[in-house]
Amino acid sequence: MRHPFVDYLEGLLGSLEHVTEGDVARYIPILAEADPSLSAVAVATTSGRVHTAGDADAEFSIQSVSKPFTYAGALEDRGVELVDEYVALNPSGEAFNELSLEADSHRPDNAMINAGAIAVHQLLVGPGATPAERTERAVSLMSTLAGRRLRVDERTFESEMANADRNLALGHMLRSHGILQDRAEDVVAGYIAQCSVMVNVRDLAVMGATLASGGIHPLTGDRVLSSLVCRQVLSVMSSAGMYDAAGQWMAHVGIPAKSGVSGAVLGALPGQVGIGTYSPRLDPFGNSVRGVEMCRIMSEDLDLHIMEADAIGSTVVRSVRREGDTVHLHLQGVIRFGGGESVLAAMTELGTGADPDPVDWAHCFYPFSEEPDTAAGRAAAQDEGRTAAEALEQEAPVRAVVVHLERVDRVAPVGRRLIEDGLKRLRADGVQVRVEDPDGVLTGG
Amino acid sequence: MRHPFVDYLEGLLGSLEHVTEGDVARYIPILAEADPSLSAVAVATTSGRVHTAGDADAEFSIQSVSKPFTYAGALEDRGVELVDEYVALNPSGEAFNELSLEADSHRPDNAMINAGAIAVHQLLVGPGATPAERTERAVSLMSTLAGRRLRVDERTFESEMANADRNLALGHMLRSHGILQDRAEDVVAGYIAQCSVMVNVRDLAVMGATLASGGIHPLTGDRVLSSLVCRQVLSVMSSAGMYDAAGQWMAHVGIPAKSGVSGAVLGALPGQVGIGTYSPRLDPFGNSVRGVEMCRIMSEDLDLHIMEADAIGSTVVRSVRREGDTVHLHLQGVIRFGGGESVLAAMTELGTGADPDPVDWAHCFYPFSEEPDTAAGRAAAQDEGRTAAEALEQEAPVRAVVVHLERVDRVAPVGRRLIEDGLKRLRADGVQVRVEDPDGVLTGG
Amino acid sequence: MRHPFVDYLEGLLGSLEHVTEGDVARYIPILAEADPSLSAVAVATTSGRVHTAGDADAEFSIQSVSKPFTYAGALEDRGVELVDEYVALNPSGEAFNELSLEADSHRPDNAMINAGAIAVHQLLVGPGATPAERTERAVSLMSTLAGRRLRVDERTFESEMANADRNLALGHMLRSHGILQDRAEDVVAGYIAQCSVMVNVRDLAVMGATLASGGIHPLTGDRVLSSLVCRQVLSVMSSAGMYDAAGQWMAHVGIPAKSGVSGAVLGALPGQVGIGTYSPRLDPFGNSVRGVEMCRIMSEDLDLHIMEADAIGSTVVRSVRREGDTVHLHLQGVIRFGGGESVLAAMTELGTGADPDPVDWAHCFYPFSEEPDTAAGRAAAQDEGRTAAEALEQEAPVRAVVVHLERVDRVAPVGRRLIEDGLKRLRADGVQVRVEDPDGVLTGG
Amino acid sequence: MRHPFVDYLEGLLGSLEHVTEGDVARYIPILAEADPSLSAVAVATTSGRVHTAGDADAEFSIQSVSKPFTYAGALEDRGVELVDEYVALNPSGEAFNELSLEADSHRPDNAMINAGAIAVHQLLVGPGATPAERTERAVSLMSTLAGRRLRVDERTFESEMANADRNLALGHMLRSHGILQDRAEDVVAGYIAQCSVMVNVRDLAVMGATLASGGIHPLTGDRVLSSLVCRQVLSVMSSAGMYDAAGQWMAHVGIPAKSGVSGAVLGALPGQVGIGTYSPRLDPFGNSVRGVEMCRIMSEDLDLHIMEADAIGSTVVRSVRREGDTVHLHLQGVIRFGGGESVLAAMTELGTGADPDPVDWAHCFYPFSEEPDTAAGRAAAQDEGRTAAEALEQEAPVRAVVVHLERVDRVAPVGRRLIEDGLKRLRADGVQVRVEDPDGVLTGG
Repeated sequence: MRHPFVDYLEGLLGSLEHVTEGDVARYIPILAEADPSLSAVAVATTSGRVHTAGDADAEFSIQSVSKPFTYAGALEDRGVELVDEYVALNPSGEAFNELSLEADSHRPDNAMINAGAIAVHQLLVGPGATPAERTERAVSLMSTLAGRRLRVDERTFESEMANADRNLALGHMLRSHGILQDRAEDVVAGYIAQCSVMVNVRDLAVMGATLASGGIHPLTGDRVLSSLVCRQVLSVMSSAGMYDAAGQWMAHVGIPAKSGVSGAVLGALPGQVGIGTYSPRLDPFGNSVRGVEMCRIMSEDLDLHIMEADAIGSTVVRSVRREGDTVHLHLQGVIRFGGGESVLAAMTELGTGADPDPVDWAHCFYPFSEEPDTAAGRAAAQDEGRTAAEALEQEAPVRAVVVHLERVDRVAPVGRRLIEDGLKRLRADGVQVRVEDPDGVLTGG
Repeated sequence: MRHPFVDYLEGLLGSLEHVTEGDVARYIPILAEADPSLSAVAVATTSGRVHTAGDADAEFSIQSVSKPFTYAGALEDRGVELVDEYVALNPSGEAFNELSLEADSHRPDNAMINAGAIAVHQLLVGPGATPAERTERAVSLMSTLAGRRLRVDERTFESEMANADRNLALGHMLRSHGILQDRAEDVVAGYIAQCSVMVNVRDLAVMGATLASGGIHPLTGDRVLSSLVCRQVLSVMSSAGMYDAAGQWMAHVGIPAKSGVSGAVLGALPGQVGIGTYSPRLDPFGNSVRGVEMCRIMSEDLDLHIMEADAIGSTVVRSVRREGDTVHLHLQGVIRFGGGESVLAAMTELGTGADPDPVDWAHCFYPFSEEPDTAAGRAAAQDEGRTAAEALEQEAPVRAVVVHLERVDRVAPVGRRLIEDGLKRLRADGVQVRVEDPDGVLTGG
Repeated sequence: MRHPFVDYLEGLLGSLEHVTEGDVARYIPILAEADPSLSAVAVATTSGRVHTAGDADAEFSIQSVSKPFTYAGALEDRGVELVDEYVALNPSGEAFNELSLEADSHRPDNAMINAGAIAVHQLLVGPGATPAERTERAVSLMSTLAGRRLRVDERTFESEMANADRNLALGHMLRSHGILQDRAEDVVAGYIAQCSVMVNVRDLAVMGATLASGGIHPLTGDRVLSSLVCRQVLSVMSSAGMYDAAGQWMAHVGIPAKSGVSGAVLGALPGQVGIGTYSPRLDPFGNSVRGVEMCRIMSEDLDLHIMEADAIGSTVVRSVRREGDTVHLHLQGVIRFGGGESVLAAMTELGTGADPDPVDWAHCFYPFSEEPDTAAGRAAAQDEGRTAAEALEQEAPVRAVVVHLERVDRVAPVGRRLIEDGLKRLRADGVQVRVEDPDGVLTGG
Repeated sequence: MRHPFVDYLEGLLGSLEHVTEGDVARYIPILAEADPSLSAVAVATTSGRVHTAGDADAEFSIQSVSKPFTYAGALEDRGVELVDEYVALNPSGEAFNELSLEADSHRPDNAMINAGAIAVHQLLVGPGATPAERTERAVSLMSTLAGRRLRVDERTFESEMANADRNLALGHMLRSHGILQDRAEDVVAGYIAQCSVMVNVRDLAVMGATLASGGIHPLTGDRVLSSLVCRQVLSVMSSAGMYDAAGQWMAHVGIPAKSGVSGAVLGALPGQVGIGTYSPRLDPFGNSVRGVEMCRIMSEDLDLHIMEADAIGSTVVRSVRREGDTVHLHLQGVIRFGGGESVLAAMTELGTGADPDPVDWAHCFYPFSEEPDTAAGRAAAQDEGRTAAEALEQEAPVRAVVVHLERVDRVAPVGRRLIEDGLKRLRADGVQVRVEDPDGVLTGG
């Protein structure tokens, strides 16, 4: 069986073939040479599968899409606190080549605008690094993320260096404010080298999937970046990755993303997928016309909007069953904060005879005198064992609890802390506790 | 057993008792009367439990925290497209009383700044609505969300009306650009009434939980807002909810939020929780000093950062087992896009004799010649049945597939589409297909 | 004989008949009713003659051209220092309805933008003034300046009040910053009344001539405004009177001016003329197309550019003639600083035997070893009596000086101070001094 | 006799000795070395006398005070129209190192800010000029204006080149917008060389006097710059010469001026004087504290405010005397537009029997039925011969007119045109005309 998702992606590309608005970037000669008819998309899951369609082998310079990755590199190399001192975290809809320095600190508004990315390039490796070392750090980090050695395209580099006045202006301005310490020309050259790295959509999707998985490379399983760094990079992408269209993108697409003037778009949805698209025609914001559209449609079709609510965790308590003075608490699924809190709630209602005193109930707000009577409400109550708890409440005190984790897929650290806290308290209440955890999801990794 | 999370919240408040920086808002006399020592926090899960600590009964005017809710109301009443015509979606770090109109359209930058919120108030109900009808719409929507009838505090309203010059300035400016149609004075009065609604932290947490659950009220299970509307409201909160500190908040806290000058902070994490905090001392951005700190600590402690990656979905394929020419595909957990895609991947590797031709493989990018050899890599491979598939690959073609959904908790629409597409293709390949779905998770709700 | 200047003005209007670019202001209904073909010009000399051409009787609302006059009124009523506290002196090219408040002080940038003019209206009369008193002050001052009772046009006033949102926005914003103390609505209404005063080009020219003459009304000879106030009003007009075109106007026309959206332009060249033009079609800056052109052409034709240098004063010393030991110093023309300084220079070179010691010469810088040998240089030297002085230098000391003022037209206060200082010193040198001043130009008025 | 004005200047310096506010510029090492106690002033009249006081021999780098002169050079070399295409004419209060490019055109706001001055340096000489040629043009023009060969100080140049990031940022930004064509580094180096020229206050005063005299060098009498160029340079200085304090300076000092961070201030009052001051301590705007104060006091003491009105020209008609049918028109002083117009007015009232028809009178606006009865009014009327004219009006027609120019000092071109037009019309009316002009002021130069 052929993977249907590939067909989906091919259909997606096909549906946009008629879209010929926009034009290739013209301000750098080599960008103007791009074939406007090229079109490609790739989606990589955090579990390591990559699906592509269209001109997936077509290489293009990564341009501004390199920014999240060097930002990640600088955060790794120098730490969040130090990097924050040089580059602010302001959402910014400003056009890509604007100055956008904070009024007082003179820090660039964020790492996704050129001024910020040049400041970030300076921060790579460390204070004593040579220009070559910084550039190599950028290229090799991107290579690691892509899973193959990427190369700087010399023609692109030369063409951009010959038209580097805006970036040199930014570099000198940053240096005048002490944001750059090395020669502005060197830092800008390094930044342009980083932008001249050649990639294809598969590279972008895999690179994005690493950000999406909190730094674990989807193909190797190696930790390439720390979770904290990925989180910060995705946060900044979410509010500043799409130039002037950032706010609109967040509302209507909802995938942290970064675009480049070569026509590339990178998307990274935490916990789910990395996305790479390529189509050189740009809209007035400088974003790929088809790339934006591909992402918007995928967000709709595949429910990828990060603000899309989802009841994960609400059904972690599968059942609460009493046998004599023993209660069996059956859990299921993935237990994060919400799930862990559900487990605790079930534990508090077991009727152990050591239940919370009345004042504690005041902390729980039930504004309606009756039980919820909608179907959904009933279902929710059932899942969480409330009705079961009610059934138990007139009976003799519970003496033992068995927590069944056989159907639990994974317990996040916060879930583990919450459950272990609950178990400790049950024991403190004099209740005998047993945990059935054949796969070691609670104790193990 | 007492719910340990209440203890956590009490500990959180206690740990911030020494924080006495900042000052209560002074620009409106009644706000200056606030008791700076008050401090409260509430967390409501999307499944309907509310935990509180501190001065949870203390009422305060909702102020700017009303903005997300009237924005939701206007989006419901008038539709996303029409509202977008009047209020832009720009991330904005601007101070709360700045003009911040887009250069060409003169639309307020977003619905979280005063200019945007006044424009939003005008849009409530519909074109023919009276001032009283708009105000009632705002108050009653917030009441529904809070789960109790909220009231406009007359003293607050009067005090703010007597100091309404900035808002009147915004109102008249908006009217001069055709963004308001009614008398600026009336719209501003309605907006001030909306800000003068009295709430406590429980109200805020429950209201936030409704946004977090995509519009389903956590206590009644009623759909109060559409999923699309919640998504847009949370998107805008994520990039513009915390005034000038919006970008920093997103990077370091990562919970869509909105603050008000009374000292309130509302948080709403999609699929998980609503949060309400109260402490009247404000930082220079106009955000509650302790409220910001409470949210930051909870985000750390409870893994609530929205950009925190999480491998949900990667373990949906529990096992792939062959018995003769039949393959049993055991699924588990919640199946969204990532999970559905995993199922499809497993299906493509069954060895049905109608497997994808070589060119299809070109669509999947495996840059490394060897199998991943890290522990994580192996585990991942195991989960997804790849090793099982390899084991099968030299055998006779598979004739039948049984998909086991007994351990699946929920299948999201996108998951359903993907799985059904896979089943159809298997049938087209001549494979006999059976689905074991005792709870009807695939077909039912 | 008919005054040829009227012909000039008629020719000027005629030469612009073909100019039909621009459009009447549309944002207020009554302004849109203006007859675009109307065209008029008036020039009033500071000596009280008024020449007009075209539709000189056509009345139009004064609009923003009222701003310099109420600014003058507020400066008279409250003093320069107090007014400066509320309205800044920043050159501003901003469009007429922009906020343009200084970053820290929140003062409007200057009195020529709407925000500044509204702040100025509040300052009229004094702190306890009623709205009616402020409005009457504005209208009666403009009436005095025009030399006839002007009236507020009720239809214009009503039409603008019905479209006053921008001004109300400015008013409320100013009040929120403490720049207005009274109700914003009242101050804005007063400001709109001031803008609704009906004038014709003759009025404007006469009003401008009063500013140009330092506050002396050209027709009555009454002092209407203080010299200091006129100076400040003209200064602000010079850098902010023509909206966004202020800088261009200053460079290319060089007459302090103010335009209004009714199509009026007021010009005032210190010491020379007041100008009024009217033609309702506006350019994109909001300035009358033909009005701007009329002023530009007149500036060229009549040498009215304020930065046009002019050797006035350099020929004040008509001759220096020695008769025995007496020197006759013949002066002529108007003696201001430059002329007075020339007189002193001549006095220092008389050869009184008490001439300056060598070190004093060090204070005078003659970089060329030879006398200037160009014709102009020689002429200049001759005029200033230098060659005469040289002729005297080898002779016996001068014992007496006769200063002849018979041909002097006027001596400004600074000229008087300089000459009297020179005379005192000559006496101190033991020289006998006599002043021939039959008209009392040195001692009298 | 010692020239009392030198004493005045020395007194001025002495009165400011206690002023020790502000600090020397620190952003360039060599500027920080300046001796803060130095203080000097020089005033040069347009007739070529230079008076100085204080440390008049102290040399300092000219810095931004070079801007008006290279602007003049570019205007001479390339023409006003072409220069205007590259550098706008916007008043700008912006700080000296800000970008300040116009929104659409990307032109620097004006030639007095760094961005504008760098653009101006590029324009020097012509399109094919080498960096050395442009620098030589700047230095040699300033040398010509100063009347001695000025030199670029190598230490200053080196120190500024080592801290040139801001200017390089501006240069590259300008080049990215096509405002510079040569290498940004070269143009900036040339600009810095121009700023490193060493001058003293005498130089500045003489250079300013050339601008003040419309381009005639006050010492040589040579025309160094065209009148049009000087006019434009002074216009821009008037609205943008004193950084953020430009508007305040214009209102309170009223002398077109330019300051530099070395502590220099240049003033140039059209038709009167050039001023140079030096004192290295700067105020927060970057202007010399004492320099600003010196200029302000001189403006007050010497009546140098350009907006100070002055009745020059109003007394040009000394008398109108009738002898039989002949009228003798005695003129005096300097005749510019205002004076010429007075002569024409007198001519129109001679009672030649061919006087203007009634409709012409409608062009002259006399709002008051009675003659003005104030003393000033009477005096004014007298001067202009109106009462004389009235005395004549019932008599027989005038047959001959004698215009006496014996007491006229100078007739400006516009004055000549007006008088000659009047004479022609009198002749056309059949009146015999004779002009008594022994010095040839009307016909000659």
